[in-house]
Amino acid sequence: MQYSAPAYPLMTSQRCSEIILSLGETAPSSYTDLKVLILNCTLNRTPLLSHTEGVISIARDVFASVGAACEILRPVDYDIAAGLGLDMSQTAEWTNDDWPEIQEKIDQCDILLLCTSVWLGEKSSVCNRVLERMYGYTHKVNARGQYHDYGKVGATVISGNEDGIKHCAMNILFSLSHIGYTIPPQADAGWVGEAGPGPSYLDPGSGGPENEFTNRNTTFLAWNCLHLARMLKDTGGYPAHGNVPSRWDAGCHQDLLNPEHRA
Amino acid sequence: MQYSAPAYPLMTSQRCSEIILSLGETAPSSYTDLKVLILNCTLNRTPLLSHTEGVISIARDVFASVGAACEILRPVDYDIAAGLGLDMSQTAEWTNDDWPEIQEKIDQCDILLLCTSVWLGEKSSVCNRVLERMYGYTHKVNARGQYHDYGKVGATVISGNEDGIKHCAMNILFSLSHIGYTIPPQADAGWVGEAGPGPSYLDPGSGGPENEFTNRNTTFLAWNCLHLARMLKDTGGYPAHGNVPSRWDAGCHQDLLNPEHRA
Amino acid sequence: MQYSAPAYPLMTSQRCSEIILSLGETAPSSYTDLKVLILNCTLNRTPLLSHTEGVISIARDVFASVGAACEILRPVDYDIAAGLGLDMSQTAEWTNDDWPEIQEKIDQCDILLLCTSVWLGEKSSVCNRVLERMYGYTHKVNARGQYHDYGKVGATVISGNEDGIKHCAMNILFSLSHIGYTIPPQADAGWVGEAGPGPSYLDPGSGGPENEFTNRNTTFLAWNCLHLARMLKDTGGYPAHGNVPSRWDAGCHQDLLNPEHRA
Amino acid sequence: MQYSAPAYPLMTSQRCSEIILSLGETAPSSYTDLKVLILNCTLNRTPLLSHTEGVISIARDVFASVGAACEILRPVDYDIAAGLGLDMSQTAEWTNDDWPEIQEKIDQCDILLLCTSVWLGEKSSVCNRVLERMYGYTHKVNARGQYHDYGKVGATVISGNEDGIKHCAMNILFSLSHIGYTIPPQADAGWVGEAGPGPSYLDPGSGGPENEFTNRNTTFLAWNCLHLARMLKDTGGYPAHGNVPSRWDAGCHQDLLNPEHRA
Repeated sequence: MQYSAPAYPLMTSQRCSEIILSLGETAPSSYTDLKVLILNCTLNRTPLLSHTEGVISIARDVFASVGAACEILRPVDYDIAAGLGLDMSQTAEWTNDDWPEIQEKIDQCDILLLCTSVWLGEKSSVCNRVLERMYGYTHKVNARGQYHDYGKVGATVISGNEDGIKHCAMNILFSLSHIGYTIPPQADAGWVGEAGPGPSYLDPGSGGPENEFTNRNTTFLAWNCLHLARMLKDTGGYPAHGNVPSRWDAGCHQDLLNPEHRA
Repeated sequence: MQYSAPAYPLMTSQRCSEIILSLGETAPSSYTDLKVLILNCTLNRTPLLSHTEGVISIARDVFASVGAACEILRPVDYDIAAGLGLDMSQTAEWTNDDWPEIQEKIDQCDILLLCTSVWLGEKSSVCNRVLERMYGYTHKVNARGQYHDYGKVGATVISGNEDGIKHCAMNILFSLSHIGYTIPPQADAGWVGEAGPGPSYLDPGSGGPENEFTNRNTTFLAWNCLHLARMLKDTGGYPAHGNVPSRWDAGCHQDLLNPEHRA
Repeated sequence: MQYSAPAYPLMTSQRCSEIILSLGETAPSSYTDLKVLILNCTLNRTPLLSHTEGVISIARDVFASVGAACEILRPVDYDIAAGLGLDMSQTAEWTNDDWPEIQEKIDQCDILLLCTSVWLGEKSSVCNRVLERMYGYTHKVNARGQYHDYGKVGATVISGNEDGIKHCAMNILFSLSHIGYTIPPQADAGWVGEAGPGPSYLDPGSGGPENEFTNRNTTFLAWNCLHLARMLKDTGGYPAHGNVPSRWDAGCHQDLLNPEHRA
Repeated sequence: MQYSAPAYPLMTSQRCSEIILSLGETAPSSYTDLKVLILNCTLNRTPLLSHTEGVISIARDVFASVGAACEILRPVDYDIAAGLGLDMSQTAEWTNDDWPEIQEKIDQCDILLLCTSVWLGEKSSVCNRVLERMYGYTHKVNARGQYHDYGKVGATVISGNEDGIKHCAMNILFSLSHIGYTIPPQADAGWVGEAGPGPSYLDPGSGGPENEFTNRNTTFLAWNCLHLARMLKDTGGYPAHGNVPSRWDAGCHQDLLNPEHRA
């Protein structure tokens, strides 16, 4: 769904909301041309409550405060086939595959937040599936011949009952970087409670929404995504030099020595 | 040591060397103001052969081809104390600590390649120690009040006998991002052989130096580091907006509403 | 499917097959009462070729050589809902859920091999889903009041194009141990090729089936599973002492001081 | 140091201590012949306070309650060289190496707890170094020709300020299993606080020592180690069948068909 109003009452603390609002008003640049896609890889289908969406809402509020287009969706609401094909419904294995619809949204975004809940210390199977499907598109190149995810900014917001933000972030940020995304400073944020069972983020008394560290880091994360996406867009992205697979494969000597082929 | 000549014969394939040279000659920008620090976290002290340095030499040749200053050093040659202090020799626990010398080099670089060999599928203990010590400096801020690693570019080159590049890269790239580095596209490269014991990268018959995938990815990695560092330097780095700890801690309302405090 | 004949020609080397056969004939004990379940978490649905099943066949041959009942199935052939419930079809979110059928097979096995292919250095989303669903049953206890997976033996066999056996094994073996499985020595085995794209295990010329390290480790893995399962069954498993949640929650003083409650 | 009295006041809750004591009194077997080695891979040298030792003390109390010999030591107190050699002081690289002294203690123990503090979500560099050095001994075999760690039980206790128990446990338990250890059920336990900076385990008001989940899991861990070590010792460990490298390498046909060579 295109973001308009929160599906449930905003849970970030009053002070955090005020800071977010203030920062949006005094932003050093305009970000209204940027598109943000937030994939919330919770295991809970809409309209069930997602604690992860509670933490995500902090980042979403930053994006909203500067007028960047921001869409949040839950891949678990879709029927996403297993496999590495572009559209698995074209195979004998699967009769339906909603993935191409999500991939199209990814292809159009400037900033991707790949978010997850934590189970057994690990990212969700939905998040794992999303990464597999994105990986299936990595042979594609952009108009310059670079891998087609070049120029996008990636980050992650995570929530769990206990323990696992960094472990999940390691894999998610690595995967995004490996396929072409640029990762800004402090690109992981989230909330988990003390070791052992206990309340989740949006549960009464969790302390999550009042956690200054979570509020601050999620806010910093969103701003660093905005700053980096702005920079990549304004400078034209990565020069197509030293990073074009087809030129490498061709031995690239003639091309490179020919001034017309300079990036 | 400041790089001048390779400590052992260059092992990259002839074709790879030619491509690297060609790309340097036709570069879209100048990079002579950039400083590259390569920490080779091998377990072997100089002058022992380091297979990891074999793969590193590909990236080093890219940096050399465009005249970027490039220093390679092995932290295992130094006496680095355990702990999170700035200088552990100031504590009762340790009489000596060479870390501050390495940290100073890190503080001056634009691009950091944190490289490792793989043991039991894991980065080396030397690499682990380096990350701990860097973590001990993360309370420091730059002139703008941002965490002091903001604006630096990080990547990793890895070599092992078998299996583990991606696992090590996940942790290394995450750690760098978490403390403020920006991670460019395809920031991990390396070589490992087939499952099981076998020759290491620089051993005769390993196939490593002829591995096109390793040659290409390491070259792309180096170029993406150069492009991103160029971009960050030319645009002035991350605006100090939405990512300044002291302003967050202060509630930041007054500052932010005051136009003079705009970043 | 209950194992009877290989779905495709056995690819293990002649020498490996002979060793496996010999070992079965001279086994130090009988294993015909043991049930082995092999979950092959490939992304390919039956009857597509699964390279992972190629490596699995080595372990399967060991189990078959001693007459242990061995079933291999691919969870991707089933419709497994996301979530932590026992049967997600009982929720409003999902209309169907095949998981309980698989869980029943898990509950009846003595040895579980949770196997996966590797994508982006990570276990498959199918494997991730299996672990989540198993985790959803961990509040259950056995007749002694211990967590209900106590007494089972867990291991993993992995295959990929390149790089990632150990990373995947870390998570799979940890998850199994965390919920109550016992992990025998050398409980991970598999095959991956050299860094970069290349043939998969069952592709002509991969070198996989001839890889002595893979053959040996997979054989050792299977035998260590047999030895440990034998030992756990013969000794009656873990005494219900110091590991019973309900007694801990009750403070357990009276129980423990009462000789009748001794395990 | 051989354990006699705690180096600092026992911090486990009164209720936990009572349960531990009660369980020791009603144990289903005798464990006085078992040797437990606890390597506390804190970064703090003795006599500095180690929060990890706070959590470790719960397990230690279990071992002490049944009279198992239990030694705790901090590898950071030793001068452990980098490398994979048995004794690196025999190389030109290092003049001293205390590792062989620790390895000897490992070789004599039945149960090894490899414990760590958490930094940046990762195990300590000291723990990483310990695993590397243990790995350097894995070519050794026992009297039966099996890898020499066969028959030992491994587990881990972890403490950190926030987030990372499971990530560290994944690697530690995997590494131990990979080299021959058997991992009992629920072999990881520890304490971390809520996301963000905050008190460490032994700091006033941390809530750590009162955390029922940590107390319970650490107690269960210790008991499962005792039960499994008892079982392995009483049954004579793993039969030397299907898991002996030299026999595999020899093709093993003659040996296996000769009844005298049955394990």
